[in-house]
Amino acid sequence: MSTNCCASCATPDKIVYTFGGGTAEGNSGMKNLLGGKGANLAEMAGIGLPVPPGFTITTEVCTYYYAHECTYPAQLDGDVKKGIANMESILGRKFGDTEAMPLLVAVRSGARESMPGMMDTILNLGLNDRTVEALCKATENPRFAWDCYRRFVQMYGDVVLGVQKRPDEDHEPFEAVISALKKERHGDAEIEDTKLTADDLKELVVRFKTLVKERTGKDFPECPWDQLNGAIGAVFGSWNNDRAIVYRRKYNIPSEWGTAVNVQAMVFGNTGDESGSGVAFTRNPASGEKEFYGEFLMNAQGEDVVAGVRTPSPVADLARVMPEAFDTLQEIRATLENHFRDMQDFEFTIQDRKVYMLQTRNGKRTGVAAFRIACEMVEEGLIDWKTAVRRVPADQVDQLLTPVFDREAIKSAKKIASGLPAGPGAAAGRFYLNAERAVDAAERGEKVLLVRLETSPEDLRGMIAAEGILTARGGVSSHAALVARQMGKVCVCGVDALQIDYSARTMTVGGVVYNEGDYLSIDGNTGAVFAGKVETSPSEIIQVLLRKTMKPEESRVYQNFAKLMEWCEACTRMKVRTNADSPKQAQTAVAFGAVGIGLCRTEHMFFEGDRIDYMREMILSTGVAAREAAVNKLLPFQKADFKGIFSALKGLPATIRLLDPPLHEFLPQTKEQQLDLSNKIGMPVEVIMRRVSELHEFNPMLGHRGCRLGISYPEVTRMQARAILEAAVEVSEEEGFDVVPEIMIPLVGFKKEFDIQKAIIDEVAKSVFEEKGRGVEYRVGTMIEIPRAAVTADQIAESAEFFSFGTNDLTQTGLGMSRDDSGSFLGKYSELEIIKKNVFASIDQEGVGKLMQIACELGRKSRPNIKLGICGEHGGDPDSVKFCNKLNLDYVSCSPYRVPTARLAAAQAVLEQGQA
Amino acid sequence: MSTNCCASCATPDKIVYTFGGGTAEGNSGMKNLLGGKGANLAEMAGIGLPVPPGFTITTEVCTYYYAHECTYPAQLDGDVKKGIANMESILGRKFGDTEAMPLLVAVRSGARESMPGMMDTILNLGLNDRTVEALCKATENPRFAWDCYRRFVQMYGDVVLGVQKRPDEDHEPFEAVISALKKERHGDAEIEDTKLTADDLKELVVRFKTLVKERTGKDFPECPWDQLNGAIGAVFGSWNNDRAIVYRRKYNIPSEWGTAVNVQAMVFGNTGDESGSGVAFTRNPASGEKEFYGEFLMNAQGEDVVAGVRTPSPVADLARVMPEAFDTLQEIRATLENHFRDMQDFEFTIQDRKVYMLQTRNGKRTGVAAFRIACEMVEEGLIDWKTAVRRVPADQVDQLLTPVFDREAIKSAKKIASGLPAGPGAAAGRFYLNAERAVDAAERGEKVLLVRLETSPEDLRGMIAAEGILTARGGVSSHAALVARQMGKVCVCGVDALQIDYSARTMTVGGVVYNEGDYLSIDGNTGAVFAGKVETSPSEIIQVLLRKTMKPEESRVYQNFAKLMEWCEACTRMKVRTNADSPKQAQTAVAFGAVGIGLCRTEHMFFEGDRIDYMREMILSTGVAAREAAVNKLLPFQKADFKGIFSALKGLPATIRLLDPPLHEFLPQTKEQQLDLSNKIGMPVEVIMRRVSELHEFNPMLGHRGCRLGISYPEVTRMQARAILEAAVEVSEEEGFDVVPEIMIPLVGFKKEFDIQKAIIDEVAKSVFEEKGRGVEYRVGTMIEIPRAAVTADQIAESAEFFSFGTNDLTQTGLGMSRDDSGSFLGKYSELEIIKKNVFASIDQEGVGKLMQIACELGRKSRPNIKLGICGEHGGDPDSVKFCNKLNLDYVSCSPYRVPTARLAAAQAVLEQGQA
Repeated sequence: MSTNCCASCATPDKIVYTFGGGTAEGNSGMKNLLGGKGANLAEMAGIGLPVPPGFTITTEVCTYYYAHECTYPAQLDGDVKKGIANMESILGRKFGDTEAMPLLVAVRSGARESMPGMMDTILNLGLNDRTVEALCKATENPRFAWDCYRRFVQMYGDVVLGVQKRPDEDHEPFEAVISALKKERHGDAEIEDTKLTADDLKELVVRFKTLVKERTGKDFPECPWDQLNGAIGAVFGSWNNDRAIVYRRKYNIPSEWGTAVNVQAMVFGNTGDESGSGVAFTRNPASGEKEFYGEFLMNAQGEDVVAGVRTPSPVADLARVMPEAFDTLQEIRATLENHFRDMQDFEFTIQDRKVYMLQTRNGKRTGVAAFRIACEMVEEGLIDWKTAVRRVPADQVDQLLTPVFDREAIKSAKKIASGLPAGPGAAAGRFYLNAERAVDAAERGEKVLLVRLETSPEDLRGMIAAEGILTARGGVSSHAALVARQMGKVCVCGVDALQIDYSARTMTVGGVVYNEGDYLSIDGNTGAVFAGKVETSPSEIIQVLLRKTMKPEESRVYQNFAKLMEWCEACTRMKVRTNADSPKQAQTAVAFGAVGIGLCRTEHMFFEGDRIDYMREMILSTGVAAREAAVNKLLPFQKADFKGIFSALKGLPATIRLLDPPLHEFLPQTKEQQLDLSNKIGMPVEVIMRRVSELHEFNPMLGHRGCRLGISYPEVTRMQARAILEAAVEVSEEEGFDVVPEIMIPLVGFKKEFDIQKAIIDEVAKSVFEEKGRGVEYRVGTMIEIPRAAVTADQIAESAEFFSFGTNDLTQTGLGMSRDDSGSFLGKYSELEIIKKNVFASIDQEGVGKLMQIACELGRKSRPNIKLGICGEHGGDPDSVKFCNKLNLDYVSCSPYRVPTARLAAAQAVLEQGQA
Repeated sequence: MSTNCCASCATPDKIVYTFGGGTAEGNSGMKNLLGGKGANLAEMAGIGLPVPPGFTITTEVCTYYYAHECTYPAQLDGDVKKGIANMESILGRKFGDTEAMPLLVAVRSGARESMPGMMDTILNLGLNDRTVEALCKATENPRFAWDCYRRFVQMYGDVVLGVQKRPDEDHEPFEAVISALKKERHGDAEIEDTKLTADDLKELVVRFKTLVKERTGKDFPECPWDQLNGAIGAVFGSWNNDRAIVYRRKYNIPSEWGTAVNVQAMVFGNTGDESGSGVAFTRNPASGEKEFYGEFLMNAQGEDVVAGVRTPSPVADLARVMPEAFDTLQEIRATLENHFRDMQDFEFTIQDRKVYMLQTRNGKRTGVAAFRIACEMVEEGLIDWKTAVRRVPADQVDQLLTPVFDREAIKSAKKIASGLPAGPGAAAGRFYLNAERAVDAAERGEKVLLVRLETSPEDLRGMIAAEGILTARGGVSSHAALVARQMGKVCVCGVDALQIDYSARTMTVGGVVYNEGDYLSIDGNTGAVFAGKVETSPSEIIQVLLRKTMKPEESRVYQNFAKLMEWCEACTRMKVRTNADSPKQAQTAVAFGAVGIGLCRTEHMFFEGDRIDYMREMILSTGVAAREAAVNKLLPFQKADFKGIFSALKGLPATIRLLDPPLHEFLPQTKEQQLDLSNKIGMPVEVIMRRVSELHEFNPMLGHRGCRLGISYPEVTRMQARAILEAAVEVSEEEGFDVVPEIMIPLVGFKKEFDIQKAIIDEVAKSVFEEKGRGVEYRVGTMIEIPRAAVTADQIAESAEFFSFGTNDLTQTGLGMSRDDSGSFLGKYSELEIIKKNVFASIDQEGVGKLMQIACELGRKSRPNIKLGICGEHGGDPDSVKFCNKLNLDYVSCSPYRVPTARLAAAQAVLEQGQA
């Protein structure tokens, strides 16, 4: 790139890269510049695979385009012409040829990362009223030629010229023209397209062009070069269409990346019965099994396979239909895996028995498949174990932990239909036939299934909201299947038995009518559809590790999981702990590989059974003595809880946080509850009401909570410290292993707060150890969850032995944004890309992360070996875990079921950050 | 100090400094080590003033004492003995002499800063059953000797041995013994102490000792050395008594400073009619007038003057009573002012016609006096103008702006009594006779006067809560007067006509009974007391500058003020702007010297008249169009407001903040109000109720407000930008001066928020300037009031042209502490010294200040000449202003009436920080 005032102002040096004819200017390493599709087309061409020639316009042109009010670099026009000339010379055809077989091209988008269905594609470009005649002549197949032409006009009219359904119309306008012609000429608007004659298609072209003129006021462009320029512009324009923006938001793709444009010579899968198109995977993307997986349609273009309009055949059938093509594809499959060393998802077209490769890319896969493929590729020697660790997306790990149907419940479940298993797991929910209503229902708190004839990018929001997706049409590579797998949603596709009536909001199967809102259950592992709600049961991993209802050797899923976790262990630097408030949670987390508790919230213990009444008595009491008496009633319960936890941990460390939430959370808020409490503890209801009202806060998040409670009511700190330390001494005595409690003081903002609370703990420890005649080692540390604590961490670290970042609250205070209230504006923020990821799920690295970084630096300045961890909900988010590794934290702590995710992310962090 | 492991562990090298006999080991520059009193005693001794000899134990011993579990450095004992020996040799007396006149000593505390009434004092130490006889013999005055002895036993018993009133007692135990003896021997418990005979006093000593034995189980110490050690310990111990802690908290004195102990030879003002004690000021501390001001009591010890038990005579009377002593004091007064070059507050004792100096210190003074003394000392050549600027306490400036009684109202006011004017200003309020009830009433929102016979340190909280203080006894140097002046409270002392009945809670004056809770009014400038509530009117400065009801030359107060402000101007670096929402406020601030508006809150404008209904309509509307229509109805009002402000500023800059508060603040919250609005705007009340409930937030402070509103409702930003820019264009056209509006976007946390809002403003500006055919310069900047903004200030500064620190919100978010909710724990925080000053009044420099510092550094990195200011309420707090100067901010902005304070503080900052 030439130098200039800024990156986006610079005019790129080389903006068009050709491929084909056995060579290519680009390669698969140039994804940022050429996009994923373009780079891989170049790579395939370079290694001799049969790729139709073409060229790629770089993503830099897209960036330039948006930085310069939708204009192009000056040299683009000439470079495109040269690119076409190169294709002409390889194929011996001319673009716009009106005599011989003309060069027709496909124009496709191709971003750095695949964005299925998000970007628009134009096929058969180069056809006009004169070249179509040349095509007729050359192919001697007028019906084919006119079908190409009418498809081109329709697609171009829709995508480039914007002739689309208006709100007042019931049907797509081009489809309406087709239906009218079918009715007019064949008496039936519903006949299949294949029934249309060449003459019908010719007439359609005329009528389509009239429609375009009516709608746009302009003639359809006849000049192939105008067509090409329009298509290129449409691809760049589509980078910022609504669907693309929605997709980018969900997958955190920066809008600055831009898309490339691929212009490639057309090959035709629809020239007749010796042609076809298909989509295949080098391994099964759902299970990970090493098998040739995919599907094809004879006499069809590739878009027909993906669109799901006709249900395709499994690719294995091709061995029978066209064995030589099948053999070629098998060879290509092997070449691809050996070359790319990853599972590939590729598109092919067979034109007159010759196989062409149109695309390859690393295949999306389920979590289960990702684990299996990674492990098996290591066994096969295709990759090393570090690559395996890096390759499994950490955010897919929990797919392995998702439920399957309960074994008992499924026996009596009423199976009503069957389709293709396209996204693993089991899901039950009320079904909705449109995305909007599905979203509404999910927002009401319902578990939802989205049921559609087929899905399209417009359904994306509904798919996000749903537990599972069920479609009547389309195969395992349909839009629904691809997107569902990526999202980790359960998906069943191509259930032919479904009859859907969108207007009546009903679904009919085998004569039985189901109304929108009824329960359905689907099995994404078998493709079964059940009426009603079928209970689910835990995943195999849960069954092996927690329920012990399966043996390790019975579950391949478990074995792959265990192998990968073992590799993770071999390269991880950070420990993974868990947030657990009970012995059971602690055990679960330890089974998943947690090495201790990073956050034990003591307040949860106050809600069980009678305890809440003692707690309330404490809060309602006036005077230290009365409060002390009430709080001491809680001591035996707290102590028993801690003993349970210490026993479960068997010597692993446990960080226990002292009371944190504001007191009003413990008090009854309704009049009835208050009367009830009044009777129970014999305190006038007026006193209770007054106290509840006294404790009301305008901003409880910023109120009387955390260590502020311990400062106001030192008796609470005293009781909790005693419960923890007595439990530790007793368990270490009774069970014979060391217990080293880490007592954590919440919401510290000032060193002196910490010092005051620590002094109480130390004093209690002294008494307890004297009383018991034996002591334990213990540590006192603090949460860093207030910006002031972060920026004065040097002071606090003089006293605190460890820090744990409470990123939930640090996000709320650091961003001045209440999690409970931000719903009213965060949607807009996400839409405008002010916030790229949900800051309450993934650490805001630039802001909150900066505060963490400051706290780490200052804390280490005062206490070089201070132990640093994180215990916010972000501890289970892969990106956040990797960020924590960058900060060199000692551990992350997350909910028990996120422990495997965090372990994988922690290992990947080491590999990605070059620490291994 | 010798080196050691840490500062507090080190044993100081020299811990006792002697003075007297014409020389001294210390001097006034050693206040940190010797305390204010000790350093000045040394200084006075050094310059030849008649100071009784003595020695000072350093503050380092106090520090050592608290760091070593209340023990002393080993050498202390020996050094004290040497100190006593030095006094003995100067005076030719022996400590504990049982033959000749014994050396008696006073033991007094002396902190770095004066803490009146906070620390305890022991007089006449060295007396026992044998030395008292020597004293009788030497003075030939047994009554005097025994009076000294019984005072010593009483004081020592109270302060050192802790014989004090128990909760179940009505009277101080020693006083009870005295009353009983008076009754027994004289038939009247109420006779004056002077009526007691030597024999009575001798008997009292016996009874006092019995009391001590009863209460403490120990004999009263007879050995003078034991007495001395006990007294020294009591002084150190009193550093941490409750009253001292309360005082330190109010005046931000660090507990680490510690106190010194002064041991000084006794001189006696109570040997007879040729003796006396007094307290004087080298100038009038209330008005600042250059006159010999003070008071004395004949035949009394110094404590009697301060205690206010007898009302003393003005010092001028001494010219008549004892002219030679008066002349000596006049000479001393001149020497002191020439030497210390500041107004001195000194204590003297006349023993048998000879004057002794017991103390001198810089005199506390009212704000009015501070200005006058500073100005006049410059005129007199005693100090230079920079010293004058440094010397006026910035937090006293607003005393000059405090009200006086309304001229008309005062004519008809019912004057019921008169006393000494001891704290300037006029105050009216309901009176309370005890501190606790005064505090309670003030917390209920009442304006309160505290009325007491005399005040003591126990009344401190009540004095803080009161508008003014009225006492029946005591003079202008009584506890009440001293403390009131320091606090800037109105105070009238020594109103003999008051009869106070604490138990009946009544005050009787001239036969009329007033009940606690009745209104009184007091004039601290004249000493007048009025029944009922007298309206107040503005200060002279207000009358000159704002009301124009006085000419500058008519007001000396104004002239001193103006002179000082002129000097400030000559050395100030930072500008002072104001927070103003109306033309009137802007004019006021400009009159006080503000050079623009630093914060104009636009939301206040939405509440006036009909506007609130349009605002509500906007909030309740659904859809952009409806909202736009409603919001545009507000446009003419907003524009008119801005025109008014721009006109008032006459070209000075104005920073205007866009809409900030959450929308629910604008909606009616009660059912009645909602019904009312429903009728007014014809919207169903259900819709209004639903919207109010939708807008409810759990933590509104962290909710949908600030620029988040402008992001959600860009039409509001558009309307406000249009109003500001149209107003700017029109005013600059109509009035012929440049208007450069600074548009400020609130609550920015992300650069992109800023960019989105700025783009709207720029777009509106383009339209407005095109429509008007003329433009204005304008700037767009942001508040820094969220920690994220502070730590990403480098990013934000790429777009923002200025930052204004919103320290109110930055304190709340940075500390995770809601101003509205922190009342429930801040009291405790202050008591425990976790927080030294109210963080919502004075910037928390270590925490919030650190965030500000980070923001300044990062902001300047991206935009070296970025304009930086502060517009939180801290902008008018002197310490905060000085901190802002350290950060090199361009301006501070504060409420109009705080502008002079800020100007003075800004000038002092330059002088103190060595920038001048």
